[in-house]
Amino acid sequence: MIQVAAIPLTRFCAAVFEAAGTPADVAATVADSLVYADLRGVESHGVLRMEIYLRRIGEGLVDPRAEPVLAEDGGATLLLDGRNNFGAHVGRRALRLGLERARAHGVAAVGVRRSNHFGTAAYFAEAAAREGCGAIVVSNASQTMPPHGGLRPFMGTNPFALAFPTGDGAPFVLDMATSQVARGKIIAAAKRGDSIPPGWAIDAEGRPTTDAEAALDGAVLPLGGPKGSGLSMGIDILAGVLTGAGFGPTVNNMYENWRDPQDVGHFFILIDIGRFGSLGAFAARIGQYMAWLKAEPRADGVKEILHAGEYEHRLAEERLRIGIPLPDGLVRDLIRLGERSGVAWPTAATESAAHHAA
Amino acid sequence: MIQVAAIPLTRFCAAVFEAAGTPADVAATVADSLVYADLRGVESHGVLRMEIYLRRIGEGLVDPRAEPVLAEDGGATLLLDGRNNFGAHVGRRALRLGLERARAHGVAAVGVRRSNHFGTAAYFAEAAAREGCGAIVVSNASQTMPPHGGLRPFMGTNPFALAFPTGDGAPFVLDMATSQVARGKIIAAAKRGDSIPPGWAIDAEGRPTTDAEAALDGAVLPLGGPKGSGLSMGIDILAGVLTGAGFGPTVNNMYENWRDPQDVGHFFILIDIGRFGSLGAFAARIGQYMAWLKAEPRADGVKEILHAGEYEHRLAEERLRIGIPLPDGLVRDLIRLGERSGVAWPTAATESAAHHAA
Repeated sequence: MIQVAAIPLTRFCAAVFEAAGTPADVAATVADSLVYADLRGVESHGVLRMEIYLRRIGEGLVDPRAEPVLAEDGGATLLLDGRNNFGAHVGRRALRLGLERARAHGVAAVGVRRSNHFGTAAYFAEAAAREGCGAIVVSNASQTMPPHGGLRPFMGTNPFALAFPTGDGAPFVLDMATSQVARGKIIAAAKRGDSIPPGWAIDAEGRPTTDAEAALDGAVLPLGGPKGSGLSMGIDILAGVLTGAGFGPTVNNMYENWRDPQDVGHFFILIDIGRFGSLGAFAARIGQYMAWLKAEPRADGVKEILHAGEYEHRLAEERLRIGIPLPDGLVRDLIRLGERSGVAWPTAATESAAHHAA
Repeated sequence: MIQVAAIPLTRFCAAVFEAAGTPADVAATVADSLVYADLRGVESHGVLRMEIYLRRIGEGLVDPRAEPVLAEDGGATLLLDGRNNFGAHVGRRALRLGLERARAHGVAAVGVRRSNHFGTAAYFAEAAAREGCGAIVVSNASQTMPPHGGLRPFMGTNPFALAFPTGDGAPFVLDMATSQVARGKIIAAAKRGDSIPPGWAIDAEGRPTTDAEAALDGAVLPLGGPKGSGLSMGIDILAGVLTGAGFGPTVNNMYENWRDPQDVGHFFILIDIGRFGSLGAFAARIGQYMAWLKAEPRADGVKEILHAGEYEHRLAEERLRIGIPLPDGLVRDLIRLGERSGVAWPTAATESAAHHAA
């Protein structure tokens, strides 16, 4: 692992996107959203995605120059056409507009179509919480998970995020895939040669399996069977069916489909907390809730009961100080991506981070 | 089991509530919500609850005569004070007002405080879907489930419901507790003498257990560990912390606290589908989604892949025709509750249902 400082890393990623024809503001947002994920320990949505994002631009399947436009404007409701720009940029536009409307109307519902992979839903949900709103953020995704009772992927592990401010503390930020587990846990079990618990996955033929290797050829199952299956489909309906985006088989796979844009859909619900009493009173009440939670007796081996997003918040604060640990191979890939477009890797970033981590 | 016809059963329950001083419209709604649950096979939220609801009136802990009032009115946002009436009535008022506001503004967010157990969240979510809205309905509940990492109940198995119309078909109605399983499944395993899978429950000391009997003395665990724990807490924040209702330990137990009202909170988000294009276009798209779902290959032993709420919808249609099967002991209890307040059990209801079921 190599420790890399977050701010120079973000600048590097943004510069690489710019070199690929991405306007500066779009490049900055996409880079920021990737590094945000790495800061919070969600490596799967981090700078690891640079390569695929750049390939999608290169193949003309993402248009980083197209500005999203409003397809419908009902005041408290908006429908945004992402015009196939990056999900992080389209999502950020949707969020900005939605926050304005939530302030004007108390609540806003923003549907988004013709977007792309938007990174972590937490990126948007947390930003809304920091502006005094409660937020629900969902997105659909290409097919990776079967419905309950099915044999093969039909919908994505469509994420559900829910966030609130907590006064001075780490915001409450739940950001969960609707699958039983992250695929990463199955990869880890396979590497250790361990089996996986029943209910996690099916093999390539759609049979339930506890063999981690077989599971990697198959698919991860929905969280709690019918519950996660229903929640994922509900998200597909809200983010895809309702908005006019793709849904089910018509959300295209970022890694496998080299002919069509993804046509991902998102949905944002933003609630102005001040409309339900004062933000100060809310902060006092949620502070009480968290204080009670912290005082609860704990299971063996549990040092502290954490609320959703609290671990990630602390990790991000630490990584902002000491740098983000990136695998050597990933750093080599990033350096190569930079060289291709004439963007130098910020050597100082790794040296300074290594110094702080030491 | 005794088959009982739904309509006379609803009338009977309403008459018993009226005899206990409940205004006719409130009595009709509460009875309707209970029988709705029985029709859909959700016996835990059905007429089984008559006795406890009546006891709460008798002890002065539910006030069936108090009309809910608006505490805040921001147009698209509303905060309703339930004034301690029944949750079904308070929820229905919140829903009616919310649907009006969603029609006016495109989206509405309705918080509710000072309410009581509101039955199944599906009761409200499905009603919204039938009026052309997408709906999210949540409620908090008294402490039955530990947080992830905790040893004892801190929050309820707070339900999350999400509903959409589907054109002519059964509405999409997801209504899930945020627990790993329903307590009923643990009761069933205990009766069979079976063990339960790891991760379902803890015993009275908070230790993980696979012993069903020990689990019944303990508590059910959150769905998927941190995911269900975070979702349940998020619902507690939305329905309780934000609205001014109880939350965590301050939502009182309907069965155990005979001194205080419950102070349950609910939250409704209603989205006018027509604002995101036409309802007709939505119906066509969701019809396509469901058709694709039905055509998916199925796991062994699965006759049909169902969407959320489809099984319950079919069961309700069947039970409307042939009656609802109620345990003999429950029917005896209902007859006794009726006798106490001078309301005769509708003998014709059971005879006619038995005839149809035969």
